[in-house]
Amino acid sequence: MSRRADSVADLVGRAREGDARSVARLISLVEDESPLLREVAAALAAHPGHGHVVGITGAPGVGKSTLTSALVARLRRDDRRVGVLAVDPSSPFTGGALLGDRVRMQDHTLDPEVYIRSMASRGHLGGLAWSTPQALRVLDAAGCDDLLVETVGVGQSEVEVAGLADTTLVVLAPGMGDGIQAAKAGLLEVGDVYVVNKADRDGAQQVRRDLRSMLSHAARGEDDWAPPIVPTVAHDGQGLDEVVAEVARHRTWLVGSGELLRRRTRRARGEIEAIAVTALRSRWADVHGRHELDELAAAVVAGETDPYAAADELLGSVSG
Amino acid sequence: MSRRADSVADLVGRAREGDARSVARLISLVEDESPLLREVAAALAAHPGHGHVVGITGAPGVGKSTLTSALVARLRRDDRRVGVLAVDPSSPFTGGALLGDRVRMQDHTLDPEVYIRSMASRGHLGGLAWSTPQALRVLDAAGCDDLLVETVGVGQSEVEVAGLADTTLVVLAPGMGDGIQAAKAGLLEVGDVYVVNKADRDGAQQVRRDLRSMLSHAARGEDDWAPPIVPTVAHDGQGLDEVVAEVARHRTWLVGSGELLRRRTRRARGEIEAIAVTALRSRWADVHGRHELDELAAAVVAGETDPYAAADELLGSVSG
Repeated sequence: MSRRADSVADLVGRAREGDARSVARLISLVEDESPLLREVAAALAAHPGHGHVVGITGAPGVGKSTLTSALVARLRRDDRRVGVLAVDPSSPFTGGALLGDRVRMQDHTLDPEVYIRSMASRGHLGGLAWSTPQALRVLDAAGCDDLLVETVGVGQSEVEVAGLADTTLVVLAPGMGDGIQAAKAGLLEVGDVYVVNKADRDGAQQVRRDLRSMLSHAARGEDDWAPPIVPTVAHDGQGLDEVVAEVARHRTWLVGSGELLRRRTRRARGEIEAIAVTALRSRWADVHGRHELDELAAAVVAGETDPYAAADELLGSVSG
Repeated sequence: MSRRADSVADLVGRAREGDARSVARLISLVEDESPLLREVAAALAAHPGHGHVVGITGAPGVGKSTLTSALVARLRRDDRRVGVLAVDPSSPFTGGALLGDRVRMQDHTLDPEVYIRSMASRGHLGGLAWSTPQALRVLDAAGCDDLLVETVGVGQSEVEVAGLADTTLVVLAPGMGDGIQAAKAGLLEVGDVYVVNKADRDGAQQVRRDLRSMLSHAARGEDDWAPPIVPTVAHDGQGLDEVVAEVARHRTWLVGSGELLRRRTRRARGEIEAIAVTALRSRWADVHGRHELDELAAAVVAGETDPYAAADELLGSVSG
């Protein structure tokens, strides 16, 4: 074993004992696609934990951040160890992150049983699928009971986060034309638990009614999970008991129905595929010292070949 | 040659003579991923046209559809042959298309020099990248001078369409908080020509000012294209002369600067990659009669391997 391997093993060992600095260092290694990434992945695979992944998603302005913070506080009252990933989708063009309001999370930064991390989802193929699952494995190895993944900002990632989670909370709030927005964004098809936040405001009842009506149209079998709707006022903790109870009930259903294994297998499949495709892309960029893909693209533009024949040629040249 | 090959050659031959039914049939073949797709692609590659691809994008409600229709009318006055693809992004979950208001396009459906087609972008890897470029090649082979690609609906595709176009029109309108929306959606980084539609309404001046201010922050070299801002009232044709003039001016710049070739090569690269990855995915689903990817995913979930090692194994088994 090289010194590097020892050092990854050391980091994983200390992370398993709950050392926050080692947890942070390991997440940085996976997020930065360090050359040690593979060692980290292999070391983590040997130490799966028991954490339950809860995705928290919804349109900007519904109070996801406040809800996440309130959920952390509520879970801590039960002495649960909690990991939080706040994922910032970056523009594919600038690479800059749209940072949300993380101030409330500072209530928890001094708690040694809470790990909080912001991550950028970058412009990778697969987006969230790339580094987030490995970061979750770090938190899982560190013995977290609950792994919260919150999306900050806008876009595809609102739906993508559902692919990462065991249980997906979709958060809505009155006064944002939310029912329709959620429907357009595909959020009505991914929620396991719907949270109507800001339930003390005008219109909250209407949001619940609209939501109930929209969800009732979904085709569901007798043994399928029927997503509950939970009203909350996150900033003063109202409704959080019920959110936690519904997440626990959903987990029981996931385990009993076999859906937990199916979801995790689907997640692993997407992850493996994203890694394999990324590896291939870098091979295509450099086949026997030539940039084969560029040459093929130029031939397509010149009308010398078509893209299907070019793809065949590309696949032939990397599989030698 | 088989009868099938003859029939593709016949279709392409008739499409080149401008036969609308053959054009429609060829687009259906590429959209449905027919087994003849490869033959169609090969036949089209041999007959590139001279068409200029104009992408038309922007948030819902700004009047993209009306603008597209007005642009068709304006181009017809110059006796140009026009192809229109209206791309409907489908939800990745339902497969259903969000159809926009296509009524105005009916003004042109009886014009034999105008080809209009709605396409679903489906849930494919690559989204628009998949069948739209082949559909554009069909229209190009049919001798269209202008190929308009309009996105209908919401989401990623607003930015994606820019990847398909030689010239991208980003459409905004007053009264929608549009500047900020456009910035969030990444539209300020993809426009070659900005159109402020509904320019007769209150707030249009403000949209132009905001837009000018936001665009002025972009880093641009002396020889770079500076995107113009064109006010229009699409429903009565106001400003369309200027839109057409700016598109023509942009095309001249694209050719002179070499950017046209660079954009088209980049587009072909993305297309080849998407085809190659899709081919690999179907191989992964069936390696020597086993569903190798599923088995590897199960091993990752069980903690028997990690996703990087699994990806290596997957790539090893398809490259034999």
